Amino acid sequence: MSGAGENARFDVVGIGNAIVDVLSHETEDFLTRHGMTKGTMALIDTAAADKLYADMGAGIECSGGSAANTIAGLASLGGKGAFIGKVKDDTLGKVFRHDISAIGVHFATDAATDGAPTARCLIHVTPDAERTMNTYLGACVELGPHDVDPSVIRTSKVTYLEGYLWDKEDAKAAFVKAAVLAHEANREVSLSLSDPFCVDRHRDSFLDLVENHVDILFANEDEIKALYQVDSFDDALQHVRGHCKIAALTRSAKGSVVINGDEVHIVDGELVKHVVDTTGAGDAYAAGFLFGYTNGHADDLAHCARLGGIAAAEIISHFGARPETPLNEVVAAKLG
Amino acid sequence: MSGAGENARFDVVGIGNAIVDVLSHETEDFLTRHGMTKGTMALIDTAAADKLYADMGAGIECSGGSAANTIAGLASLGGKGAFIGKVKDDTLGKVFRHDISAIGVHFATDAATDGAPTARCLIHVTPDAERTMNTYLGACVELGPHDVDPSVIRTSKVTYLEGYLWDKEDAKAAFVKAAVLAHEANREVSLSLSDPFCVDRHRDSFLDLVENHVDILFANEDEIKALYQVDSFDDALQHVRGHCKIAALTRSAKGSVVINGDEVHIVDGELVKHVVDTTGAGDAYAAGFLFGYTNGHADDLAHCARLGGIAAAEIISHFGARPETPLNEVVAAKLG
Repeated sequence: MSGAGENARFDVVGIGNAIVDVLSHETEDFLTRHGMTKGTMALIDTAAADKLYADMGAGIECSGGSAANTIAGLASLGGKGAFIGKVKDDTLGKVFRHDISAIGVHFATDAATDGAPTARCLIHVTPDAERTMNTYLGACVELGPHDVDPSVIRTSKVTYLEGYLWDKEDAKAAFVKAAVLAHEANREVSLSLSDPFCVDRHRDSFLDLVENHVDILFANEDEIKALYQVDSFDDALQHVRGHCKIAALTRSAKGSVVINGDEVHIVDGELVKHVVDTTGAGDAYAAGFLFGYTNGHADDLAHCARLGGIAAAEIISHFGARPETPLNEVVAAKLG
Repeated sequence: MSGAGENARFDVVGIGNAIVDVLSHETEDFLTRHGMTKGTMALIDTAAADKLYADMGAGIECSGGSAANTIAGLASLGGKGAFIGKVKDDTLGKVFRHDISAIGVHFATDAATDGAPTARCLIHVTPDAERTMNTYLGACVELGPHDVDPSVIRTSKVTYLEGYLWDKEDAKAAFVKAAVLAHEANREVSLSLSDPFCVDRHRDSFLDLVENHVDILFANEDEIKALYQVDSFDDALQHVRGHCKIAALTRSAKGSVVINGDEVHIVDGELVKHVVDTTGAGDAYAAGFLFGYTNGHADDLAHCARLGGIAAAEIISHFGARPETPLNEVVAAKLG
């Protein structure tokens, strides 16, 4: 491992959308009726969010957001995490702040005092446990470079960015500022591609990022194929090799593949008895991987991938994207 | 069955506190440190609620409230339910209204436009799956007799009241108004004792109610013992016999006992592989029982009790007090 891990206050700082999830069980027919593409995330405005909420079933609310889920997972594993993201000072904003602070994550981004309310993600879980998401970004659009605290970035071993940020100019500027600061401080930068549609929206930027700015890339099969516009996972694999320091590619039940130059690890997925809800699986994988990476296992990427798989297995075995059982206990039970 | 079931628009109308639950996993030590009595419900004010929320772990939010959970369960079984309770027109009030409306329950009580916010119940689930609750009643205190719509009571086979209502004078008046209206319309009245401390606070009133106004009483072992101030379940059983038409007494894993004059049924509990969270078990039991009772099985109380046990088993096998799997599907799988 490089000097990236020295004198660090945090293992990972995540920058992402600060969102409260509203999860409901829905039928396949519900997705069809609303013209949704299963397994993806779509951005919706206030009017569409109100209409969809009125039409969806009874929900449960819990804090979400891709990078925030990853940092919550890291904290649950015993890691030291920080989060940068924008809520409003409303009821759901207070819920988001409480939940991430309660697990020991440093979250000091000021809440917006006017403008749109705290973001919501309406998540529809179909009987196959797949989740389909519609996000109302709300106060997230207020996130900008001024919210990126240089001292937090400089003292974090890894700065982790979600691709979803790329959907808004100010957030993108925050993203770039953080990446530059991290590298200036000899830290590492990690990116999650987030969603295949998100990749389609920003392919050129993401290709540039991956080639020139990202040390650790997270992507699932659909996302990495979308990035290189290829039809097979193996084709995507050949493209990504050598384009960033490390790529951790998740393949649902098939486990994950980790590339690091000539080094390749193929790590099987954990056995999950009953998959309830896949929301947050990728976020949890990144949590496990980065926890291992920043806690003494940077030279054992297969172990990092295994930790990612264990964390993801916990998340998909219940409803919601944050751990129900402390992940350090889950790992201890699996690995002793 | 009496004439109570004729020409009804609703199977059951529930009157209760309209509450959003905030559930977190906590240790036994957390309960001790906060001076809580495990398994009970305490009322707290705004300041105490803010302090406790700040100290508790990350939560999930879902609609709750004892009678509301029962009506939600009834709807999930395929029954026709109505609910009367008071939220404020704030974010959590909208969540409560959405969730109960989305499952087809008639909920027409006006939201309060000023005063305290929508009620919250901070629920701490310990590793033994027991729940300990602290309720901030908020807008619930605004519920009064004017909120009881006579046409809804008159067209409901059963009016179901939670004992918790007795904690506020106006809600108590609403409770009494509804009971009188129901009986005048030749309908039946059902009461849940809610909580042993609630019984201690209102023992004389509850004894009078049970003797003179209640057709179907729900109580768990601790509550029925508290009502008659006796130490053994059997002693309580002898006291309650003959004091109301029907008493359905729940005993957690031991199942339930149903008394109807000389008729006694002892119905074993359903086997639950892994109890996750007992929040809402009693509410779900009442849902199953009343669904059976108002849907053709009033002459087969053992069947009603079995339905109660099946509904409770679903609720305690996951986090949260409302069904994750539609209860009609759960019943179909169990009973064919």
